[in-house]
Amino acid sequence: MSFRDTHAGELGSADAGRTVQLAGWADRIRDQGGVIFIDLRDASGVIQVVIDPAEHPAAVDLRREFCLSAIGTVTIRPAGSENLDLKTGSVEVAISDLTVLSTAKALPFQLDERTDVDELVRLKYRYLDMRRPRVAANIRARSVGVAAMRSTLSDAGFLEIETPTLIRSTPEGARDVLVPSRLQQGDFYALPQSPQLFKQLLMIGGIERYYQIARCYRDEDFRSDRQLEFTQLDIEGSFWGREEVLATLESVMVEVVRAVRGVELSTPFPRIPFQEAIDRYGRDKPDTRFAMTIEDFTDLFASAGFKAFAGVLEAGGVIRGLNAGPLGLSRSALDGLVDDAKEAGASGLVWLVVEEDGAIRSPVAKFLSDEEMAGMVSTLSASSGDHILVVADRARVASEVLGRFRVRFGTPEHHDELEFVWVIDFPVFEETDSGDLVASHHPFTAPADVEDMAANPRTAVAQAYDLVLNGLELGSGSVRIHDPDTQQKIFEILGIGADEAEERFGWFVEALRYGTPPHAGFAVGIARLMSILQDEPNIREVIPFPKTQTGIDPLTGSPSAVDDDQLVELGIDLRPEVRAERMAREAESAAPEVG
Amino acid sequence: MSFRDTHAGELGSADAGRTVQLAGWADRIRDQGGVIFIDLRDASGVIQVVIDPAEHPAAVDLRREFCLSAIGTVTIRPAGSENLDLKTGSVEVAISDLTVLSTAKALPFQLDERTDVDELVRLKYRYLDMRRPRVAANIRARSVGVAAMRSTLSDAGFLEIETPTLIRSTPEGARDVLVPSRLQQGDFYALPQSPQLFKQLLMIGGIERYYQIARCYRDEDFRSDRQLEFTQLDIEGSFWGREEVLATLESVMVEVVRAVRGVELSTPFPRIPFQEAIDRYGRDKPDTRFAMTIEDFTDLFASAGFKAFAGVLEAGGVIRGLNAGPLGLSRSALDGLVDDAKEAGASGLVWLVVEEDGAIRSPVAKFLSDEEMAGMVSTLSASSGDHILVVADRARVASEVLGRFRVRFGTPEHHDELEFVWVIDFPVFEETDSGDLVASHHPFTAPADVEDMAANPRTAVAQAYDLVLNGLELGSGSVRIHDPDTQQKIFEILGIGADEAEERFGWFVEALRYGTPPHAGFAVGIARLMSILQDEPNIREVIPFPKTQTGIDPLTGSPSAVDDDQLVELGIDLRPEVRAERMAREAESAAPEVG
Repeated sequence: MSFRDTHAGELGSADAGRTVQLAGWADRIRDQGGVIFIDLRDASGVIQVVIDPAEHPAAVDLRREFCLSAIGTVTIRPAGSENLDLKTGSVEVAISDLTVLSTAKALPFQLDERTDVDELVRLKYRYLDMRRPRVAANIRARSVGVAAMRSTLSDAGFLEIETPTLIRSTPEGARDVLVPSRLQQGDFYALPQSPQLFKQLLMIGGIERYYQIARCYRDEDFRSDRQLEFTQLDIEGSFWGREEVLATLESVMVEVVRAVRGVELSTPFPRIPFQEAIDRYGRDKPDTRFAMTIEDFTDLFASAGFKAFAGVLEAGGVIRGLNAGPLGLSRSALDGLVDDAKEAGASGLVWLVVEEDGAIRSPVAKFLSDEEMAGMVSTLSASSGDHILVVADRARVASEVLGRFRVRFGTPEHHDELEFVWVIDFPVFEETDSGDLVASHHPFTAPADVEDMAANPRTAVAQAYDLVLNGLELGSGSVRIHDPDTQQKIFEILGIGADEAEERFGWFVEALRYGTPPHAGFAVGIARLMSILQDEPNIREVIPFPKTQTGIDPLTGSPSAVDDDQLVELGIDLRPEVRAERMAREAESAAPEVG
Repeated sequence: MSFRDTHAGELGSADAGRTVQLAGWADRIRDQGGVIFIDLRDASGVIQVVIDPAEHPAAVDLRREFCLSAIGTVTIRPAGSENLDLKTGSVEVAISDLTVLSTAKALPFQLDERTDVDELVRLKYRYLDMRRPRVAANIRARSVGVAAMRSTLSDAGFLEIETPTLIRSTPEGARDVLVPSRLQQGDFYALPQSPQLFKQLLMIGGIERYYQIARCYRDEDFRSDRQLEFTQLDIEGSFWGREEVLATLESVMVEVVRAVRGVELSTPFPRIPFQEAIDRYGRDKPDTRFAMTIEDFTDLFASAGFKAFAGVLEAGGVIRGLNAGPLGLSRSALDGLVDDAKEAGASGLVWLVVEEDGAIRSPVAKFLSDEEMAGMVSTLSASSGDHILVVADRARVASEVLGRFRVRFGTPEHHDELEFVWVIDFPVFEETDSGDLVASHHPFTAPADVEDMAANPRTAVAQAYDLVLNGLELGSGSVRIHDPDTQQKIFEILGIGADEAEERFGWFVEALRYGTPPHAGFAVGIARLMSILQDEPNIREVIPFPKTQTGIDPLTGSPSAVDDDQLVELGIDLRPEVRAERMAREAESAAPEVG
């Protein structure tokens, strides 16, 4: 039995007179008494079919989203009744044979784009949500984008290799997702945060060019753009340095953007050193779609009469400013910015507005010299109406706080433009609040200079780089350490003792001792990339079956309770307080309602 | 800094005179005093490089598997010293500049193919094992095979879609791998045994053509060809019946076999109904590379004088036989077959040997008529030396026992030939030992006829099919149920009560109520397929980082103990007896040795 021989979206005037069999869903139904018009939708598009209820009495019972198969004749629509909104709008199909393949209950929400539906409801009925054009387009675009990644890398000689997902737990930054072992009771596997060590093993194994679209797992308290499981494009190459990685990633991005957006990117992408990104954009993921850079006024105010500035400079701080543009803010709104700056960690904020006549309006105007004000206006190319924001503070604080205002006032609402940029020369380590050093990327990242790193770990530069698109981090990579002594030096600086290093990474350091080639690689978060290319506000929109921010799937009701005998087999049990809490909850929901 | 500009395996006579930079591993080293020859290996192949130790004194310290970068001049080898075993054997590279990129410890085993190494040692040093040509070829072939799957399906309009791997536990056949949730303490996710329900949801969602190379998980007591995690090619199509599935799979197999083996398969593949497979091959995965089919002699012995046969026939049994060929077995070996048949569940086995003069030698020859013996010889085309094996028993037992002998005596040692065959018309249900019905495939498989299934569940035929290659099951598929009432009927027959069905599958049956299209699909185990195409005896050979049969990774030492505070966060604890056992084990390994 065949259900169709023609896709709805492919029909046009050239098909007039053809008898076709279609299958799909009743998208819209207009019953005009003597004739019923149905927009029949399948994955390829929509076609209007025309049914005579006198011949097909069952047709009057059709409802939206019934699944239908229908045979009919393609006819040119009468002049004036064409539907220009529809690709197939010049024709319709007069139905001679109609089969209801399955019926549909009343829908929990309308499937057209105009209906704003609560996300929890959308996720509970994700299978209906993905019949909506936007979600369907996202799923299709993701498939197209990933296919472009694969073909680019395959053509360049990369092998696609699967690394294991039940691995040894080696807590890095984020929390591992743990999996109890049944055959080795009391032991646990971890789901991988990334294939990092396995792809390095592949390089040691002589593979030379590896890629994988890899499922990864991170048990963090979810931020809006994170999921418990996520997917990354993971690549690694032997006898590689930074240039090979960057060129490969650029070629992948060119193909993906061409395939998904039909846009030609120009390469190479600009490169911004980490320190410059922090100084001029206030963050390590600069959005370069708009200028509005942070400028340094430290020299301008070297002999400042304004005590607040002079004091900061004496203490080794800086004075930096930003032209936030013609915001048209009221006095109280401007004072609100001062509060925001303080909340963000700055000791204060100075605002200045350029008046129509070129004069400067500011609470601190009287403390500033004409030269100082003119210098700021000139450096920031400020003109009538522009709002200038200035922070005097430690360098990092000044730039970070101004960086927040930059993003707040400058960021375009949509991703019409695509600005890729590399941020390079990341530090090897960063300091925690307690002053300890942690790996800026991960502990397998090669320093630019091993001896310098040993001598000056707090300022040492790594061979590490991020790819940033429209101010969002797409991914990061590095040249890896291929020398076991350097690897152990890093563990030392990180305060990982010899015993702990042996216990956690001994098997890996051992592997480095067998002729490890120099190697480097990168990983790109696929949902992040696709959400930007599809101009979606969050990654859940490009994930077929996402979870909520608390890790719940409202569709299947996962996670869920399991039988005790399953836990016994695994050698584990719920903690007494968790079990008690569960039982109390169950008793409550089972209790008859009172009243 | 660049490490190479030329791949070792690409050099030939045409390159003579070129200066090249190579990078790779010292595969073999021959120090002939005045000159050192090294076979330099990279992923592309091997080239002989020639080093003058007078110019490069460090070269005398080179050892196998050091990683090197070297600059030199390609020269034609002197006549007579060409190496015909090597693709690049007409040339060598005279080295002017040599850099040791990294050294290598003494190897735990030699990397040439002639060395047979214990598998546990190979797995512990998998990164060295994969430098061996065979493992490297398997990894490459798998990448090539999977790429062929993707391109075939992508060209046919399939979307590659990722389904979640942290899902709701819905125990089907095998045990779920469970994952404790940290944010929903006391609840668990399961890792998927297959994407079955999610791909059906995609069809309900209007996707129409889906595929995925999907990681799946099954916590079974491992057989030699199973792993805790495995990968399947998973496909599903809407408005599909069996023919579309089979044609799609055949096109995929044609492309994979062409890409990996360079062989053209002819299609369509033969189809064997389930019952015929059982009767004529003794199993539902017939190896059709060799004939040796099981023949039925029930009619031939309808009036048998041989009491053992007559008794079986009276009890409703059958008499079936097999020509096992000229085995040249001794009398005691033949009697051993009788014991083997009994162990396999048959009440006995009759053997007959065709003598050179056409006479039959058999312990039961005197009980059989000439016509009976001639009939068997003729049906089985037996000739001088052939061994005929006959079982009289219930039909299923007779065929299954003969099927074992068929495989034992007929199966070719290598997979030089590739015989694909479809087994179709599987039963909907099978009986457990206790007489209960379980789903033969899975409970979402459509019966051929719903009413017949309800009336005669024990004999009902399903729209289900397996793909078999060389007697091994590659995968299975079916037309799915798209009607919620049929789905509930299946649950009823399986003894899944309304409450249990609602609790376990309620969300799925609800989804079926919104205009579900008819759909069908299939899944193919990738490691199984690749191990056959690579003529490997087990699937671990085509898995980059396999685990042992007890789920252990000897390389990383996974699974392993985790900190108690990690368990506290997850709301779980080890069971007291498991914890006690662990502590005892640790105390033992920590105790000083006595003596």
